[in-house]
Amino acid sequence: MPFPFDVDATDPSGARAGRLHTPHGVVETPVFMPVGTHGALKALTPAQVAETGAPIVLANTYHLAVSPGEALVAKHGGLHRFMAWDRAILTDSGGFQVFSLPKASIDADGVTFRHEAGGEPVTLTPERAIAIQEALGADCIMCFDDCAPWPCDRARAVAGVERTTAWARRCRDAQRRTDQALFGIVQGSAWPELRRRSAAELVGLEFPGYAIGGVSVGEGTDQMLEVVAGTAPLLPAGKPRYVMGVGKPEEILAAVALGIDMFDCVLPTRHGRSGTCYTARGPIRIRHRRYRLDRYPIDTSCGCYTCRTFTRAYVRHLFESGEILGQVLASLHNVHFYVALMRRAREAIVAGRFAAFLAETTAGLAAAD
Amino acid sequence: MPFPFDVDATDPSGARAGRLHTPHGVVETPVFMPVGTHGALKALTPAQVAETGAPIVLANTYHLAVSPGEALVAKHGGLHRFMAWDRAILTDSGGFQVFSLPKASIDADGVTFRHEAGGEPVTLTPERAIAIQEALGADCIMCFDDCAPWPCDRARAVAGVERTTAWARRCRDAQRRTDQALFGIVQGSAWPELRRRSAAELVGLEFPGYAIGGVSVGEGTDQMLEVVAGTAPLLPAGKPRYVMGVGKPEEILAAVALGIDMFDCVLPTRHGRSGTCYTARGPIRIRHRRYRLDRYPIDTSCGCYTCRTFTRAYVRHLFESGEILGQVLASLHNVHFYVALMRRAREAIVAGRFAAFLAETTAGLAAAD
Repeated sequence: MPFPFDVDATDPSGARAGRLHTPHGVVETPVFMPVGTHGALKALTPAQVAETGAPIVLANTYHLAVSPGEALVAKHGGLHRFMAWDRAILTDSGGFQVFSLPKASIDADGVTFRHEAGGEPVTLTPERAIAIQEALGADCIMCFDDCAPWPCDRARAVAGVERTTAWARRCRDAQRRTDQALFGIVQGSAWPELRRRSAAELVGLEFPGYAIGGVSVGEGTDQMLEVVAGTAPLLPAGKPRYVMGVGKPEEILAAVALGIDMFDCVLPTRHGRSGTCYTARGPIRIRHRRYRLDRYPIDTSCGCYTCRTFTRAYVRHLFESGEILGQVLASLHNVHFYVALMRRAREAIVAGRFAAFLAETTAGLAAAD
Repeated sequence: MPFPFDVDATDPSGARAGRLHTPHGVVETPVFMPVGTHGALKALTPAQVAETGAPIVLANTYHLAVSPGEALVAKHGGLHRFMAWDRAILTDSGGFQVFSLPKASIDADGVTFRHEAGGEPVTLTPERAIAIQEALGADCIMCFDDCAPWPCDRARAVAGVERTTAWARRCRDAQRRTDQALFGIVQGSAWPELRRRSAAELVGLEFPGYAIGGVSVGEGTDQMLEVVAGTAPLLPAGKPRYVMGVGKPEEILAAVALGIDMFDCVLPTRHGRSGTCYTARGPIRIRHRRYRLDRYPIDTSCGCYTCRTFTRAYVRHLFESGEILGQVLASLHNVHFYVALMRRAREAIVAGRFAAFLAETTAGLAAAD
């Protein structure tokens, strides 16, 4: 175990409050990790991201390997220095890109991608995914997994589980650095017995953390939560649990109640760029005419720079005028909203009142304002 | 005079160091005013603009009148509150848009624009330009002028001068607020005797500040400086002098030597968005392949957030990846570069060594790196 994970409190609901002691600071869980695919949170400076309170961000191994290449990042002294982020980082393994990007071939050894920009094809194997992630130097790194599409037939799901276990072993064996926490990823689509098999095989390999992968791939909230509910109890209580690619605020809170500690999602930044802003009363489309004269902040209960400083009318005006600053301010607010939501969730867990917090907050998020 | 302007020092070269005591802080001159057309500096938060040290920014009356409308801005308590900028602001009058935008008609009373977005046509008169600027509430406001195109025949230039004087009188008479400094704008194209006539007529109207307009309209640097050299001495020594829309760093420094105090230009933000970054050794195209592995900051002598924090290779990577953050960081650097250049120019003036500073700095800016 490269660094400890403490569970400080477990709420009667099953939600946990923990602390992950990374080389780049303590990450209090449950935690939301904003996504910086290319080693940059979209539209935000690291100073602005730090201001939201985020203790950890996610970056994408595949994208960074394609450009600028892990060698350049390593020459900068690693990803923390390259992107000027001195808190924790988690890199994915490229496994999700096996699912989401066009690829030339997938076999027992690994996956060859057709590079989008028409350049050299990139091949990822478990060994290469670990080598890249060691060069990047994130605090938490992920096993290279086979994320089956949704829906898929049982044979494909079985193949995914078997390949994921075989690759996880190869990842573990390929790891050289001792200061990075390598997470195993449970697959198995929506078959409970396949999830059980995948979890058992990975737990047998004794990783310092576990992720539930193959979710948020089009299956819908109910199915996702069913998979998480079935899988989370199979993972060791003393290790961090991460559901990949989830999700909406209400989905994250529901998964916290199932004992999940870590989350990532592109929604807050993607929505921010298109002018959808989260509030305690559900998302709002800031470009809507109803906000033309609105002198309230985006979310009256929010303490972010955007909400402390600007009115809805001003942010709307920026979007209407095509100003990049609108995208910046909305992204900043949305990331802050997610981070603050997780902090409040943690406080509720520590106080043993998470069930009430969940009910109230979820009702608010679903309110038509 | 709504607020004082002190000339602290005049260099043997003719360059002046002054202080403009606005209701929103002291503006040390010579000063560069970054342009925030729609009440926002492109890609930058007001906190980031403040960090560059800029004591004053410019916003465009015409654009704000079209959207969101000055009434909304006034309801926010004025432009300072609307855009969350508590330092000084100067608004132009819309006169330059008479020159640069498609218009339906121009007559003795005013100008009717065809609104770009196909909406209502906007009519600007001297009275309306002042009313809008009083509603916006900038510290420095501008007379509505007739900026002749370049080149134009003498008759057109004469008509521009006569109309500009008549409109300047109407602007002065229309002014109700006593806390805003209304600047007259000298026109006359490149005819020295027309510039003399325009300057004399406007000085007779006793404005608290004077601008040289009708420059930076395609005439080129030499012609622009010739007009400035001929016009600046005609303006009262005890009042601020502003050359509108100028320009490149070396043009600004040359105009400072001619006794000009205030400048504005879209170049630093426009170039920042396209990846052209200013340095003491001339502008560089950060997307160029030569910067792929470059671990120096954009400008090794710069103290801005971008240069303190990131390498050229990282900023280049952001542009290559299509990340908005690249535009943010390059804009931030460029605005800081202009602001720092003016601060160093002022120090040189106060120390009586501006001629040497001008020669050295201009040679550096022209260096092929």
